[in-house]
Amino acid sequence: MRLVSTPPLEYECPRFQSGKWKTVARIVKKFGGTSVADLARIRAAAAKVKAAVDEGHEVLVVVSAMAGVTNQLVGYVNDTAPIYDAREYDSVVAAGEQISSGLFALALQEMGVDARSWLGWQVPVRTSGAHASARILDIETAELVKRMEAGQVGVVAGFQGLGPDNRITTLGRGGSDTSAVAFAAALKADRCDIYTDVDGVYTTDPRIVKAARKLDKVSYEEMLEMASVGAKVLQTRSVELAMRMGVRLRVLSSFENGAGTLIVDEDEIVEQAEVTGVAYSLNDAKITLLQVEDQPGVAAAIFGALAEANINVDMIVQNISENGRSTDMTFTVAATDAARAKTVIEAIRETVPFKDILVDSKVAKISVVGVGMRSHAGVAQKMFATLAEKGINIQVISTSEIKISVLIAADYHELAVRALHAAYGLDAD
Amino acid sequence: MRLVSTPPLEYECPRFQSGKWKTVARIVKKFGGTSVADLARIRAAAAKVKAAVDEGHEVLVVVSAMAGVTNQLVGYVNDTAPIYDAREYDSVVAAGEQISSGLFALALQEMGVDARSWLGWQVPVRTSGAHASARILDIETAELVKRMEAGQVGVVAGFQGLGPDNRITTLGRGGSDTSAVAFAAALKADRCDIYTDVDGVYTTDPRIVKAARKLDKVSYEEMLEMASVGAKVLQTRSVELAMRMGVRLRVLSSFENGAGTLIVDEDEIVEQAEVTGVAYSLNDAKITLLQVEDQPGVAAAIFGALAEANINVDMIVQNISENGRSTDMTFTVAATDAARAKTVIEAIRETVPFKDILVDSKVAKISVVGVGMRSHAGVAQKMFATLAEKGINIQVISTSEIKISVLIAADYHELAVRALHAAYGLDAD
Repeated sequence: MRLVSTPPLEYECPRFQSGKWKTVARIVKKFGGTSVADLARIRAAAAKVKAAVDEGHEVLVVVSAMAGVTNQLVGYVNDTAPIYDAREYDSVVAAGEQISSGLFALALQEMGVDARSWLGWQVPVRTSGAHASARILDIETAELVKRMEAGQVGVVAGFQGLGPDNRITTLGRGGSDTSAVAFAAALKADRCDIYTDVDGVYTTDPRIVKAARKLDKVSYEEMLEMASVGAKVLQTRSVELAMRMGVRLRVLSSFENGAGTLIVDEDEIVEQAEVTGVAYSLNDAKITLLQVEDQPGVAAAIFGALAEANINVDMIVQNISENGRSTDMTFTVAATDAARAKTVIEAIRETVPFKDILVDSKVAKISVVGVGMRSHAGVAQKMFATLAEKGINIQVISTSEIKISVLIAADYHELAVRALHAAYGLDAD
Repeated sequence: MRLVSTPPLEYECPRFQSGKWKTVARIVKKFGGTSVADLARIRAAAAKVKAAVDEGHEVLVVVSAMAGVTNQLVGYVNDTAPIYDAREYDSVVAAGEQISSGLFALALQEMGVDARSWLGWQVPVRTSGAHASARILDIETAELVKRMEAGQVGVVAGFQGLGPDNRITTLGRGGSDTSAVAFAAALKADRCDIYTDVDGVYTTDPRIVKAARKLDKVSYEEMLEMASVGAKVLQTRSVELAMRMGVRLRVLSSFENGAGTLIVDEDEIVEQAEVTGVAYSLNDAKITLLQVEDQPGVAAAIFGALAEANINVDMIVQNISENGRSTDMTFTVAATDAARAKTVIEAIRETVPFKDILVDSKVAKISVVGVGMRSHAGVAQKMFATLAEKGINIQVISTSEIKISVLIAADYHELAVRALHAAYGLDAD
């Protein structure tokens, strides 16, 4: 039963409570490190939880460590043992969420809300044995659900679980987002609210484009593409999990009031613009091999060697051979991997002869993203024309179903983002 | 088999290892907060463990939280919830030892010592459900022993256990000493070394008497009496437990080399001086009730009311009634309880009439302690004579089998301690 015609924030289930009909939902609320950075912020976050509880909703909270604590603990580990036992790392670092979950539960209790903390091993959150980057396998929810239905708020220490060795595991950096989504899926929650220090997902970086608009809704796929090109609001892994498990995500600020941005299935987005957002990344390097011998197996040799060295290659372009014997090959890697990539390729020069290798880190990757481009023609053409109009040279192009990316000189990235944002009609009125 | 005739530090058990015969022992080593206050100190402490391991000993380490961390976490809890849920308190505060145990294990690994951390719930250390002041009920040692015998050093997070509710419990302040003794008992360890910031137990406070001597050995009973009058080196509870379980304790410095002080059964101390040490406390208050009606049930009414208010009474003296109808009654309580004690007694004035109530906080309790006084006559007489010689008035006297305590004006406490230390022949040459 729906009480409103537009897709609602919660799936309502009317129930008679305290003398009136209420719509209640089961909601997971996740608070990041800046949202629980000190006791005042923990209280402010707890007040948001209390508000939802007072509306009759069933709430489970997932918390990160207080901002700075995880870095401090990781620093201790690194200073003690440069190459460390990941099992000890996990035990030390998980203490951060242990502290914040207990304090959050106490803050709720102070407000008269029935609450208790849950550590990963207490739930338990069963994970793989890959310490420091474990995957959640299973969450036991029976006890949590019983208590939720009785009105108790569980405050889960995010980022942590229990490995098959009966020791604490952690999910890797930003893993609290993943914890929150996994709990939302396991609890069949109506929504997973991710509280952070921004008030939602924007059409582009508001620091570059003043007219950037907050999106009310964005699809999982768009969110993933935008995250992969630098618009980091959510952990990529948590968005993938939400998409796979059908968890409705909401990103919103813990410091302001506002509806934030809903991250949902494409179907839920009724009006699809041709482009949803413009993203950019300055963290790539372009590598060009000049006059590579143009023969079968060359690409395999090069990219095989890079893969073996654990270097991810992103965009690849191979020019048409001029003389039929040699070709220029260009690709991008993370800027931090550029020097290593060069070494790897120079090491196979005997197998794959080339004239020269050029590395350029002064590049920017600009992407336009939108599920709407599936049904709108001419999106790529508009991008190229817009950049040409501003005299910006395109070095490499790559496309996916819902994204077009180009590599340009880094100096032009703000100009390019502004021009494209305007060209696709994304500027706020 | 004993290789030496005097009671050895370890019960030797010769075994052939690395080409030579070695005597090995099973030792629990406990490091307090100042001994693991930073990474450099953790490394220094780990080096002491490695030295014992290199000698072939089986070692289990118990650690406190890094100095200051527990206070910080307790502060967070108090600031969040003035009256807190002790279960959440335990979860938050136990994070301190979780951090130090992981770092300590890593420091050992860096030195090439096989090591792993153990949290209370992992061992598990089963405790009562009295959160924030739990008692250890049982420690599962099978896995620990197997690993010890295989050469692995366990690093146990002290102060914490697992309650019947499957939640973290803590043992109350200073509980890491208790953890260490409990592990030593459960593992049938040959000795429990308590590393701290002093190099042993002294005949008296060296800040008052320059000629104070470090004791090589002291009996459990003496240690308990000295702790109760302010010479706090070890948690009273841990000494009681060691005495009951027959655990040989050693107190020693983690910053200097030295044999420290052994705390053992009375039988192990061959030559018993009449007095082992002189202790003092400035934390008492003297309360005097003037002209209390001298009739049956008066003492019961007064001390019953104080007990009900959870106020511990220490020394008690009742003067002989002059006229057979009224008496003066004097007793001591902790100075922090004095105001509350006065209120409690004024509240029962109708039942127990008295003329006036006097509270004096400027008192010192001076005690001479020694198992030797059982077999030496005249110990009390020497104490009274020594104080009289210095013109120090004795206000209250109380005695136990191995202790004589007197209450004097606080101003004279240094003079009294020095005079008694000399009178009993305790001054170093």
